[in-house]
Amino acid sequence: MNLAERIDAQRDQHLAELCEFLRIPSVSAKSEHKPDVERAARWVADNLAKAGFKSVEIIPTGLHPLVYAESLEAPGKPTILFYGHYDVQPAEPLDLWTTPAFEPTVRDGNLFARGTADDKGQVHIHLKAFESLRAMNGGLGINVKVLIEGEEEVGSVSLWDYVQKNREKLKADALVVSDTSMLAKGVPSITYGLRGLNYYQIELTGPVRDLHSGVYGGAVPNPLTILSELFAKLHDKNFRIAIPGFYDGVVKLSAAERKALNSLPWKKKDFERAVGAAGYDGEKGFSTVERLWTRPTLEINGMWGGYQGEGAKTVIPSKAHAKFSTRLVPHQDPHKIAKLVEKHVRKLLPKSVHCKFEVLSTGKPWSASFQAPIFKKAQSALEKGFGKRAVFIREGGSIPFVTQMHDTFQVPCVLIGFGLPDENAHAPDEHIALENYFGGIKSIAHFYADLATL
Amino acid sequence: MNLAERIDAQRDQHLAELCEFLRIPSVSAKSEHKPDVERAARWVADNLAKAGFKSVEIIPTGLHPLVYAESLEAPGKPTILFYGHYDVQPAEPLDLWTTPAFEPTVRDGNLFARGTADDKGQVHIHLKAFESLRAMNGGLGINVKVLIEGEEEVGSVSLWDYVQKNREKLKADALVVSDTSMLAKGVPSITYGLRGLNYYQIELTGPVRDLHSGVYGGAVPNPLTILSELFAKLHDKNFRIAIPGFYDGVVKLSAAERKALNSLPWKKKDFERAVGAAGYDGEKGFSTVERLWTRPTLEINGMWGGYQGEGAKTVIPSKAHAKFSTRLVPHQDPHKIAKLVEKHVRKLLPKSVHCKFEVLSTGKPWSASFQAPIFKKAQSALEKGFGKRAVFIREGGSIPFVTQMHDTFQVPCVLIGFGLPDENAHAPDEHIALENYFGGIKSIAHFYADLATL
Repeated sequence: MNLAERIDAQRDQHLAELCEFLRIPSVSAKSEHKPDVERAARWVADNLAKAGFKSVEIIPTGLHPLVYAESLEAPGKPTILFYGHYDVQPAEPLDLWTTPAFEPTVRDGNLFARGTADDKGQVHIHLKAFESLRAMNGGLGINVKVLIEGEEEVGSVSLWDYVQKNREKLKADALVVSDTSMLAKGVPSITYGLRGLNYYQIELTGPVRDLHSGVYGGAVPNPLTILSELFAKLHDKNFRIAIPGFYDGVVKLSAAERKALNSLPWKKKDFERAVGAAGYDGEKGFSTVERLWTRPTLEINGMWGGYQGEGAKTVIPSKAHAKFSTRLVPHQDPHKIAKLVEKHVRKLLPKSVHCKFEVLSTGKPWSASFQAPIFKKAQSALEKGFGKRAVFIREGGSIPFVTQMHDTFQVPCVLIGFGLPDENAHAPDEHIALENYFGGIKSIAHFYADLATL
Repeated sequence: MNLAERIDAQRDQHLAELCEFLRIPSVSAKSEHKPDVERAARWVADNLAKAGFKSVEIIPTGLHPLVYAESLEAPGKPTILFYGHYDVQPAEPLDLWTTPAFEPTVRDGNLFARGTADDKGQVHIHLKAFESLRAMNGGLGINVKVLIEGEEEVGSVSLWDYVQKNREKLKADALVVSDTSMLAKGVPSITYGLRGLNYYQIELTGPVRDLHSGVYGGAVPNPLTILSELFAKLHDKNFRIAIPGFYDGVVKLSAAERKALNSLPWKKKDFERAVGAAGYDGEKGFSTVERLWTRPTLEINGMWGGYQGEGAKTVIPSKAHAKFSTRLVPHQDPHKIAKLVEKHVRKLLPKSVHCKFEVLSTGKPWSASFQAPIFKKAQSALEKGFGKRAVFIREGGSIPFVTQMHDTFQVPCVLIGFGLPDENAHAPDEHIALENYFGGIKSIAHFYADLATL
């Protein structure tokens, strides 16, 4: 029995274990889930031990624990640091899930549950790859450090603090992450670029209390109207972001890269079907792929104020709120951008409202030269796992940790994703294709096996 | 002993009775209070009987009972229909009340309890005026019909149904209502204009499901952005409503009325203190009083979409929602306005979102010629009750019943209010100034007495 056959033989066992992991509602954003988040950390630690890691730690932090494990039994061989996260996004709105978010269910070759694609399913791929490799070969053949955090969905603050204080301990020849997507079904992919992310929240206060819209309407500042007018001014008619200086750091793509990206087997029809809206908005002068992966954005993520119940309430609310974010591309500086955004928002607002402006998180964009040998190893491992040639892509999402690790350790970061763009990460009915989960375990096991000869 | 002296002699008795009425938590919106609402109806019926009305009915409806009474003992004399409501708003949030909502308490010359100003206290003023008049004169001197409902705070559906089926029974020479406010403390007031109200709700759908703002951001329609851009286009830079045809029906105020309104003892400082915002927005070219009472508005009453929880969620929502309303002035036609608003909203929206547009309610504006003799009688009666000249004011709010009655019976509607703008109707610590409650009884008794010579 070779490695691939051994992994095939374990499919049911692997899937059952993953479902156990997915049943823990480890929602890092909600304080009522703190015990679940801790339970998920213990689950990861226990399963690393089962996969043969002798040194496993659960590291308490100011918020959610980190899990660290290492297997340094291959002197002279390369050392990799595998990173992932065991926390998940909130499952709301719950009523839009076909089956409950924390009761994993297989339908049409897909496994549905919060965290399947982002990122528990992908973390589990590595756990099972380690386990399979050790079972086959009696060891991993390389040195492995594993760092799994519980705050990825809320800004990774504790992780970063830990990394800064443990640089020597975490040192490796490469960083490996599976928290991204394949370009499309049947197209194994390696991601070499990510957007950065700044996340903001604003609260506008107009009247000191909610007012009757009949008695006061027409003569007082309505913070919801002012909030609308604010956001209407943040894009110009070409859908460029209308904040002075916002594009100053943006690197222009080379003609070669632009051509390569636009030649990928990216299917506009699949994208449109996944989105399902009647038309598409975006910055003028760029293709959809370019807009998604290589251009910065400003998106409203949430907005609320006033009466949201049944029927009519004739109120002018005291407060209006919005959460919004900017995706950033090389070489925009997140801190500089945060300052520009706040300054411009304050400039646009009338004096009749008080504005509380918060930057909830900042994160740098990242892109890598994918010609390094380890990228070629990843490409061939994916071909072994999926029987198809892997492509090099960028992504619109953000993994701040990748940038930070890259900046800190100056080593290659290899992003091998097994999700798909339409698998509803962060939305109801999140899922992962079982063929990618199982193909992922095979690919990653081959990848680690092959790294011994790097 | 004259009428005024008799009323003064009864102060303690009147107040004790009002407190009894206020202790009944007749919250019409809450089904658990249904027995209390019925108890309040019986209380009103009993007290009408005590005030000498021989024919008193409690009329069951699909929801809460109506109370009807009549005294038609003055052939050849005018007939008035007095309207009021015995139901109250919910008392929540309870913890913001200084003393419990249904335990009436006097502090600093004010009586605090839910319903003091809106509308039990004002209904009681009329009950005590009837009683005093009959005790002094052996009769009312005019013909009186009384209609007190228990659904004013939940839409008056049963009332309107009853009125339509009992037009002959309810016929009168004038409608008298006390459910409004005085301009300010020490300024007895008669309201001769109300704004109409159309209330709308829209739901925009962009993507078929919530999307990850990293994976999709920059290339898909964000319904929150589109909603913001929509509302930003509904006012022009002078804060006029930018909907074609919206102002077509608006009657231009005469120079005389404009001057009269701007000469009222309306105190900008009191208004600003009540609002508490740093600046004031409104349509250019009009004073605050004109904006509040005589100009139409478009106000957002509620808005929501996307993530509203703690922390960050990087989502592009599928849907965005808003509740908004237009206050209308003579002679805007609510149905015509609803059509104009919907047409323009649909025109402004891009094809990338689907819009569900609902009109939740429509209501006509109203204004009366206050030169009619009955208004002069009201003015002089208020002067007898308060020792101060009464002013004629308009209000920004809406009382659909007044417009409907005016349209149905084509008779003068006299709105004599004894509340004050800052008495927290619909909010915690609702109260009525005792001087206005007692002054109200005197004024209304004189008013009814004087109507015999109309």
